[in-house]
Amino acid sequence: MEVEMVENGLKAVEQELRAAVNSDVNTLYDAGHHIIDSGGKRLRPRVALLAHLAAGGQALDQMIPLASAIELVHTATLVHDDINDHSLTRRGKITVHARWGRTFALLTGDYLFTKVYEMMAPYGPQYNVVMADACVKLVEGETLQALAAKAGTMDRETYKQIIARKTASLFEAGARMGAMLAGADEAVVTALSSYGYNLGLAFQIVDDILDIVGDPETLGKPVGLDVTQGMGLMMAQNGRKVLGETATMTAEVEVDPIQEMLLQLRESGAVEVARLQAYEVAQRALAALAEVPPSPARDELEAVVNLVIERQK
Amino acid sequence: MEVEMVENGLKAVEQELRAAVNSDVNTLYDAGHHIIDSGGKRLRPRVALLAHLAAGGQALDQMIPLASAIELVHTATLVHDDINDHSLTRRGKITVHARWGRTFALLTGDYLFTKVYEMMAPYGPQYNVVMADACVKLVEGETLQALAAKAGTMDRETYKQIIARKTASLFEAGARMGAMLAGADEAVVTALSSYGYNLGLAFQIVDDILDIVGDPETLGKPVGLDVTQGMGLMMAQNGRKVLGETATMTAEVEVDPIQEMLLQLRESGAVEVARLQAYEVAQRALAALAEVPPSPARDELEAVVNLVIERQK
Repeated sequence: MEVEMVENGLKAVEQELRAAVNSDVNTLYDAGHHIIDSGGKRLRPRVALLAHLAAGGQALDQMIPLASAIELVHTATLVHDDINDHSLTRRGKITVHARWGRTFALLTGDYLFTKVYEMMAPYGPQYNVVMADACVKLVEGETLQALAAKAGTMDRETYKQIIARKTASLFEAGARMGAMLAGADEAVVTALSSYGYNLGLAFQIVDDILDIVGDPETLGKPVGLDVTQGMGLMMAQNGRKVLGETATMTAEVEVDPIQEMLLQLRESGAVEVARLQAYEVAQRALAALAEVPPSPARDELEAVVNLVIERQK
Repeated sequence: MEVEMVENGLKAVEQELRAAVNSDVNTLYDAGHHIIDSGGKRLRPRVALLAHLAAGGQALDQMIPLASAIELVHTATLVHDDINDHSLTRRGKITVHARWGRTFALLTGDYLFTKVYEMMAPYGPQYNVVMADACVKLVEGETLQALAAKAGTMDRETYKQIIARKTASLFEAGARMGAMLAGADEAVVTALSSYGYNLGLAFQIVDDILDIVGDPETLGKPVGLDVTQGMGLMMAQNGRKVLGETATMTAEVEVDPIQEMLLQLRESGAVEVARLQAYEVAQRALAALAEVPPSPARDELEAVVNLVIERQK
């Protein structure tokens, strides 16, 4: 029954997301619908809705704008990321940036972010403080990543900071707010926040692994785009500076430096180490659930962990 | 006495703005301080603080984050605008985009916007609904402007929509929230909102005039950047399509199309018509103040109108 409620809730989230991009400015409408309609896993709103139910909440209707806002933050950052990464495809479709150009992609991302704010505004300060904190961290994480990419270097601590801020914070915020809206005890709110945070870490590590070993067709986007993230994985294993060596080598033999880096990473054993790290944080997410009373929703949250670890796209 | 309170309030706003960009991510700290420290007229927070006092408010300390957030929205859009306009100078200094590159300028603008959200989060839903609405409109206005620039055409209604959404909405929101925080009657809140809205329209029309006839050195930025806005001014006079003619002419004689457009606009009489429009909306702003009880703060709001109309930069 609860599972069905979540599926219905996610349908309501889709409607809310579509309604958010019904601007009377045609390009914002078109580009907004383009990115919303291209789908996505909707994992963040799913986790927020499940956390609400697992915390004993019954107000799934009140959760819809909140869960939609969580997804919309993520969507806004995708649009801006694709500008910075010069990406041409996303979710198997052309990117906003490639279709409408840089100026309108920038404005579309800004627009989506203002709609996040609009969706969240009716909630009380305690929710908006959590959401704002996650948004600040997200942009900081993206910036740390761009700085590492520019410097061509990455260390273990920086990698951890990046994935914690750019990904785990938003998963954490969704789970936390879902539990808060259920009026749960502080212990349950903390447990579900910890679940969201560690699930987010696992999700990002697996994402970085797929960027190295994944199938571009299955992923719906090119691989090797976040190769500095891959460097982070590799550094976590052996502490070496990778890109310097690669750059030297590629200068000699004139191969595509990204392909060369991917090859290096695949052969280095870094991917296997990263998988172990993903399992470790996944275990922490599962351990956090032990503080939450048993329920079908809690079972679902467990299943999400496995889904994240095993996913191929 | 009230005037002194406002000046002290504006000093507190500066501190709040600087504190907002104290990120532990160096580039966000540096680029954030760069744009904040480059100053600006701080007209929006001044209007918000004065509206609060004119509405009978005494809680200027509670107004500081709100007034700072209003200025920070404006600052965030400047950083993103400069990317889209390829501008090299702003307020007499190098732009974030020119100094740190496009990627970090995009992220800095995003960061400033998340800090707006963070500053506003502690205020109640009624304030955040007003602020979010202004932010949505602002991005829509920017997008309408970019679309008009791309199409190389502008009509009177579009010009009005652009300046209402991209500029007047934020002035209006600041004045409205200032009055709300004073606990003023609905009539006074409405009057001060109308003041802010019309002042914003006047401000933008004068801004567009200065882009045509202003001195780049006094302005601290190049002129002719918003020449499509100038087209809007011109259309408001004679309903002709301007850029088409200019493009044809310049193709023949090979002159700089922007300089040519500026010359056309200066000679067309459009600037004089625009000045009359600015006076008209300024009069509406002053008329709105008649609904507000007399006070030194109301006198200051009147003085701001003249400042906006007479400004040379």
